[in-house]
Amino acid sequence: KKIAILPGDGIGPEVTKQALKSLKSIEEAFGHEFTYTEAHVGAAAIDATGDPFPQQTEDVCRAADAILFGAIGHPKYDNDPKAKVRPEQGLLAMRKKLNLFANVRPVKSYDALLSKSPLKESIIQGTDFVVFRELTGGIYFGQPRGRSEDGNQAFDTCNYSKEEITRIAKLAFQAAGNRGKKVTLVDKANVLATSRLWRETVQEMASDYPDIQLDFMFVDNAAMKIIQNPKDFDVVLTENMFGDIITDEASVIAGSLGMLPSASIGTAQSLFEPIHGSYPQAAGKDIANPFGAILSAAMLLEYSFGLVEESKAIQDAVLKAVDDGFVTEDIDRENPVGTEEVGDKVAA
Amino acid sequence: KKIAILPGDGIGPEVTKQALKSLKSIEEAFGHEFTYTEAHVGAAAIDATGDPFPQQTEDVCRAADAILFGAIGHPKYDNDPKAKVRPEQGLLAMRKKLNLFANVRPVKSYDALLSKSPLKESIIQGTDFVVFRELTGGIYFGQPRGRSEDGNQAFDTCNYSKEEITRIAKLAFQAAGNRGKKVTLVDKANVLATSRLWRETVQEMASDYPDIQLDFMFVDNAAMKIIQNPKDFDVVLTENMFGDIITDEASVIAGSLGMLPSASIGTAQSLFEPIHGSYPQAAGKDIANPFGAILSAAMLLEYSFGLVEESKAIQDAVLKAVDDGFVTEDIDRENPVGTEEVGDKVAA
Ligand SMILES: CC(C)[C@H](C(=O)O)[C@@H](O)C(=O)O
Ligand SMILES: CC(C)[C@H](C(=O)O)[C@@H](O)C(=O)O
Repeated sequence: KKIAILPGDGIGPEVTKQALKSLKSIEEAFGHEFTYTEAHVGAAAIDATGDPFPQQTEDVCRAADAILFGAIGHPKYDNDPKAKVRPEQGLLAMRKKLNLFANVRPVKSYDALLSKSPLKESIIQGTDFVVFRELTGGIYFGQPRGRSEDGNQAFDTCNYSKEEITRIAKLAFQAAGNRGKKVTLVDKANVLATSRLWRETVQEMASDYPDIQLDFMFVDNAAMKIIQNPKDFDVVLTENMFGDIITDEASVIAGSLGMLPSASIGTAQSLFEPIHGSYPQAAGKDIANPFGAILSAAMLLEYSFGLVEESKAIQDAVLKAVDDGFVTEDIDRENPVGTEEVGDKVAA
Repeated sequence: KKIAILPGDGIGPEVTKQALKSLKSIEEAFGHEFTYTEAHVGAAAIDATGDPFPQQTEDVCRAADAILFGAIGHPKYDNDPKAKVRPEQGLLAMRKKLNLFANVRPVKSYDALLSKSPLKESIIQGTDFVVFRELTGGIYFGQPRGRSEDGNQAFDTCNYSKEEITRIAKLAFQAAGNRGKKVTLVDKANVLATSRLWRETVQEMASDYPDIQLDFMFVDNAAMKIIQNPKDFDVVLTENMFGDIITDEASVIAGSLGMLPSASIGTAQSLFEPIHGSYPQAAGKDIANPFGAILSAAMLLEYSFGLVEESKAIQDAVLKAVDDGFVTEDIDRENPVGTEEVGDKVAA
């Protein structure tokens, strides 16, 4: 089994390193052999090659059975609206070129972290839903996009095809079948033509899944309901930009953005990444939360290799580490444990 | 002073009625004379004329010095993706035709309602920020939008001009000057061309406001930070769709969506409306929260008529009603007071 390792920028390398420790433990404990090939992406790749997702990295990804990715982004590009190449373009190119069309983001509360959330414990305890965010369409990629000649106008295009909607909706309906049997489509069908296509397409598909309840919710309302009644959700299905916003919002349920893993399902291989960003201010300080990356490795084992028991072993080890107070400073300001030590604990 | 009254759909008429009671009290107590002209909008207008924002309603608005609006929307149109006319089109047409370019949404915590929020009291107590949401541009209005001929593709366009950004940014900077001296621009400049124009334009303007601190925040991060550290915000400036999402989200800080008023600043006259929707399930049941509408009337007095003391009188009456437990069932399930009674209390 070949795994491409793309540490990326900021805290990406150090959290990915902790995830690797757990994968290596799994190899030993269960007698597997994984091979790892590292490649650059993001600002790291711009520095090395001028391209945030260079051909060589693409080749490494295509040759792999699964991809473990850290994070992307560097502040030197953020406040320069005229920067020609941005690290994020590497992330977007990677998603697009590898057809990573469905980003699966589980949102769970942790009993030991209930007090860390800005939300009340009674609101979040027992939360367990999963967001299926479309990842290769919508306003992230639509053409045309850019500037008018005089530079005084800018435009972006959001577009979706029935096919793009169908392939991710299928995964969402299937997931709901193995869970709480409810899909909530989050859209803005009272304003957007693309949202109406989503609603129409998903509505049509619903008859193929008679045991699944299909609900519709406008994104503004969803942004409210997700923090008011998170336990009401089972599978949330949504387009690219809305998914970006509501999953970051929902991360407060887990106590920290640093806790959340994700799987980006591709047509050939899939990619696994924590939902947090590169958080450059924290880089190299041994303070980054590695759980999102470690849990992404657990998702990799299950989704790409079908290693359910192995995946579970990592998840249980994370739960135990959390219960034992092995958490970084984003969660415990008073008694934080370092990134490396958390990684060692889980791997052990 | 002429006020156009547009009650709209669902709970719109009953909450607008309560706001009118307060305006009438103000007339008596302060010796003013306002004239009120009612007109249809939304589903109510479709039923009456086939058009959700008929010419006659537009005329009434243009003849007025300010507009008080209730809510728009009816479920019979929501789940019919093929509906030709939708009530929301009336709202959007109204915003566009009357040039209501800046939607001002104050977000405050109420000491008496702290326990009603899903957020912890320590997080929200003392929150006081205001969102400036651009209201007549972006993906709500951009052309082209619609479907491909075969119906299998849909598209929307987001566009912004420097001018559109400048005129609302000016208001945001000015407001910050009278408040906490901080503007946070919420965008997605790492992905969207329009966001980069926002960032560039607002950045350029910042030198005209040397005493104002300008921050930038990606919308996904903002969706998280607004519920993690709401007290960190002073003036939030953002485009249309992002503003729609984060203001609904932020409403949980006030204890209920029903608490939040808004002002939509126009180039000629301005419009005032609660941020909640038409909530048709509650219509006619005397359970709708009228505070958002009443506080919108208070904003009207201040913003359109410069009647600061009168506006304050209404705001104080709302605070007192809340403190005395005169609140509807969205806030107090056990001992709710009816919509009419709350309206009477505030007016008295
Ligand atoms: C870095 C950025 C382009 C990216 C996105 O918006 O998709 C990130 O926020 C994410 O959610 O993975
Ligand atoms: C009803 C809808 C079109 C509207 C919007 O999206 O602007 C509403 O949500 C609002 O915020 O006023």
